[in-house]
Amino acid sequence: MKLLQEKILNDGRVSGNDILKVDNFLNHQLDIAFLNEIGKEFKNRFANEKIDKILTIEASGIAIASIASQHFGNVPVVFAKKVESKNLDKEVYETKVYSFTKGKEYSVKVSKRYLHEGENILILDDFLANGRAALGLKDLVDQANANVAGIGIVIEKGFQEGRSLLEKEGVKLESLAILKSIENGVITFK
Amino acid sequence: MKLLQEKILNDGRVSGNDILKVDNFLNHQLDIAFLNEIGKEFKNRFANEKIDKILTIEASGIAIASIASQHFGNVPVVFAKKVESKNLDKEVYETKVYSFTKGKEYSVKVSKRYLHEGENILILDDFLANGRAALGLKDLVDQANANVAGIGIVIEKGFQEGRSLLEKEGVKLESLAILKSIENGVITFK
Repeated sequence: MKLLQEKILNDGRVSGNDILKVDNFLNHQLDIAFLNEIGKEFKNRFANEKIDKILTIEASGIAIASIASQHFGNVPVVFAKKVESKNLDKEVYETKVYSFTKGKEYSVKVSKRYLHEGENILILDDFLANGRAALGLKDLVDQANANVAGIGIVIEKGFQEGRSLLEKEGVKLESLAILKSIENGVITFK
Repeated sequence: MKLLQEKILNDGRVSGNDILKVDNFLNHQLDIAFLNEIGKEFKNRFANEKIDKILTIEASGIAIASIASQHFGNVPVVFAKKVESKNLDKEVYETKVYSFTKGKEYSVKVSKRYLHEGENILILDDFLANGRAALGLKDLVDQANANVAGIGIVIEKGFQEGRSLLEKEGVKLESLAILKSIENGVITFK
């Protein structure tokens, strides 16, 4: 997605050899008009799939999924929760996700009320790196006996193993921008 | 907002005498068409205010603020972070918020890049109860020497002290539904 590559080059900030900060439009401050362009592109990429619901994970995925839903006929969005919540149902699908950024495993949950057998689920998230969060979301969908219609990612770190892990699982993966490297402060795309 | 009251009566679930669960449309599963009705109503309530930016707090506020932005000319949305993030800037506005639900204080942060002197900020959130989160967001806006143009809440627990605390601060507060009580499983509105 050309527009996204330009946005990353203009507004992204590189830190070290592996961190790309896009917090001025994607995951702290949100550029809503731009998120609509992203949503439109996800619809193009998954135009042939039947999508009943969008699943994402708090917090960075929520805005992306919510705006994207409008381009998929306002299908419901469900966001998986990372944090213990007093108000979350006891009956949940739960999986463990290892975070390389934080160096620890955390628990991800979705209430059983909101994922159902046979539903076609589009998984959306802001970043794909090691793929653990996406695999965790897929595991929640599998537990519900629902189908992963596809995984849509805004920015993929093409130099990490997320894609190969997901492709082994046989899912349709679409990333709107794929970073080849961000070494020495220089961003290159695949 | 009549439509919201009906939605709460139809889809909300009461737990004990003070918890209203609306996780099937507002804060776990998200009804995007309905969030657009909410966004439209916030625009009606703040039609006379100049709004440069919307500030909310992760995670439940993000979808509401993102969809609402579309009714305010796609103004930028910024969500304050509760969780430690490796990728968050070092230069932040920070405040402490006491959570009665969790029985502890937590830290709320916004990068200094995304709140500026003189900006007119609309604060949006899903619930108002004891008002601590809203006061915390107001404190972040104050630290930036920006102006709180108003606070918009989807559901106010009218039997808790949030409103009186915020009114003492002189802010314009608009809640789309105000609960009078949720005792014995019966929801009544003010």
